[in-house]
Amino acid sequence: MSWNVAIAGVTGAVGQEFLALLETRNFPAENYKFLASSRSAGKTMTFAGRDYTIEELTENSFDDVDIALFSAGGSISKHFAPIAAKKGTIVVDNSSAFRMEDDVPLVIPEINPEAIQTHKGIIANPNCSTIIGIVPVWPLHRVNPLRRMVVSTYQAVSGAGWQAMEELKQQTRDVLDGKEITPSVFKHPCAFNVFSHDSNIGENGYNVEEMKMVHETHKIFNDYSIAITCTCVRVPVLRTHCESINLEFTEPMEPEQVVDLLHQAPGVTIVDDAENNYFPMPIDATGQGDILVGRIRQDESIADNRGINIWVAGDQLLKGAALNAVQIAEELLK
Amino acid sequence: MSWNVAIAGVTGAVGQEFLALLETRNFPAENYKFLASSRSAGKTMTFAGRDYTIEELTENSFDDVDIALFSAGGSISKHFAPIAAKKGTIVVDNSSAFRMEDDVPLVIPEINPEAIQTHKGIIANPNCSTIIGIVPVWPLHRVNPLRRMVVSTYQAVSGAGWQAMEELKQQTRDVLDGKEITPSVFKHPCAFNVFSHDSNIGENGYNVEEMKMVHETHKIFNDYSIAITCTCVRVPVLRTHCESINLEFTEPMEPEQVVDLLHQAPGVTIVDDAENNYFPMPIDATGQGDILVGRIRQDESIADNRGINIWVAGDQLLKGAALNAVQIAEELLK
Repeated sequence: MSWNVAIAGVTGAVGQEFLALLETRNFPAENYKFLASSRSAGKTMTFAGRDYTIEELTENSFDDVDIALFSAGGSISKHFAPIAAKKGTIVVDNSSAFRMEDDVPLVIPEINPEAIQTHKGIIANPNCSTIIGIVPVWPLHRVNPLRRMVVSTYQAVSGAGWQAMEELKQQTRDVLDGKEITPSVFKHPCAFNVFSHDSNIGENGYNVEEMKMVHETHKIFNDYSIAITCTCVRVPVLRTHCESINLEFTEPMEPEQVVDLLHQAPGVTIVDDAENNYFPMPIDATGQGDILVGRIRQDESIADNRGINIWVAGDQLLKGAALNAVQIAEELLK
Repeated sequence: MSWNVAIAGVTGAVGQEFLALLETRNFPAENYKFLASSRSAGKTMTFAGRDYTIEELTENSFDDVDIALFSAGGSISKHFAPIAAKKGTIVVDNSSAFRMEDDVPLVIPEINPEAIQTHKGIIANPNCSTIIGIVPVWPLHRVNPLRRMVVSTYQAVSGAGWQAMEELKQQTRDVLDGKEITPSVFKHPCAFNVFSHDSNIGENGYNVEEMKMVHETHKIFNDYSIAITCTCVRVPVLRTHCESINLEFTEPMEPEQVVDLLHQAPGVTIVDDAENNYFPMPIDATGQGDILVGRIRQDESIADNRGINIWVAGDQLLKGAALNAVQIAEELLK
């Protein structure tokens, strides 16, 4: 079988990664449709040796489209994904618009691929920091239920789009040159700075990014008993998120057991060389599909050896966004 | 009274901050002695409008010196601080050489100034990440004993000296220019990268920086019952450390109570404007003596409202090093 695939938001940072992945993974599509805003419509893009004209995303874009990968922002998804689904297109949506809807599966293929089958036309791709954090936690939780998780993130600017990546580069150069800087994508300077994640703060004091980690983990693990607290922070890195994750399990869990479980886990590569002080880093995770995991050690502040600390790094644009969505599409084709 | 003060390691990043602080705080010294390695000996430095010739640090440097501020590395301290102490000089040592010695007080003036009086010639200045993390925790612990603390740090490169700050700047420029880079101070690239702290890893999997947080906090709080786990990480920031701190107290603790306590606390400034997404950042903390504290919120993953999350930023070279040492010296003069 072959498939007609549309990409909504093809000019964005995630859209570009969709293309690279579909090509390198030989996705079995017969036709592609490249969709974007009217601003980009009419422009030409080369993909897998063929030229494509970008079309404006409209309500009529989805006739004959089997699968649509959406990464054009929440409001675009909210409007167009239901229209596409009504026409029989299966939408894999990278926005947060539908993630918490009861009838929309929220899927990380390494964790809950079976949820895909329950879709009613829309499948949601989880948030980047959730995916990167919990891919390596799932294989542990499955054998020894997680009680509590304390996460602090070190997030790249790419989650705010390619403009944010350009801003980091240009602003850094300007700071080095002693020039005045005027942040535009972010409210605060990102060059040589660190700031609390730029999403809105709710009444409980947590920002939206932090609550995504809580709610999405519960839904994906289908376990609402896990106590989760999270602090989301941006660092001056281009496209890989790191996370410091503190885990409390129900039963004792030794670091050696974690290593064993993660060695067999899909989507995970262990990088944990204490002797050479070599652990997961953005420069190594960037461009990789796997989540790198290291600093696997007993948390001695939790009784009975039930605590484990890990440190992870994952490419925000790949496993944190485009790759996970393409993997969902691949599961659909199975 | 006036005092003869020596500064050992005057040419280093912390040494330079010693000078700036002694001048702006009108430290009541009659004479200063600037000490450094033979490499710098003979050079001239201007301080408070007077020229000083840098002298080589030797065993004879401490005749007639009342107070010596040391920041020349652990091995220099180990050798020369006891020699100075034997001559009657009171050493305030910024290295880790004596911090865990039973007869050496380890002091943060906002927390345990009374410990200063027990000195036998050497007073130790705590590690930067310990000071910055626990100055705002102490006022809380005092009214509601801390049971457990989970810390993830976002540490500037300045802890590795001014060469590290230069490396970050030059390397960042080279990366932006597409040039090959060769890390020198750090093992790993620091530009647009994040890496696990560059101190040695012990048998338990924790690096030295992380264990300093554990052991120094116990000693400074004089409470060895607190369970502490820590993950120390370097980020591409020049001189301010940030920390994500998760606190579990014995009794319920509301965010409003934390705000009240920290409003009255010395050495702390609250920066916690949720509406404008304005929280502690390196660009604001740099050059400030106070620790900035924000993101004060209930940790809902701990039962009975006994959990609090905070986010702090503090200048590594000031309160994290030179300022704390100068404050100790000022306490000595009282």
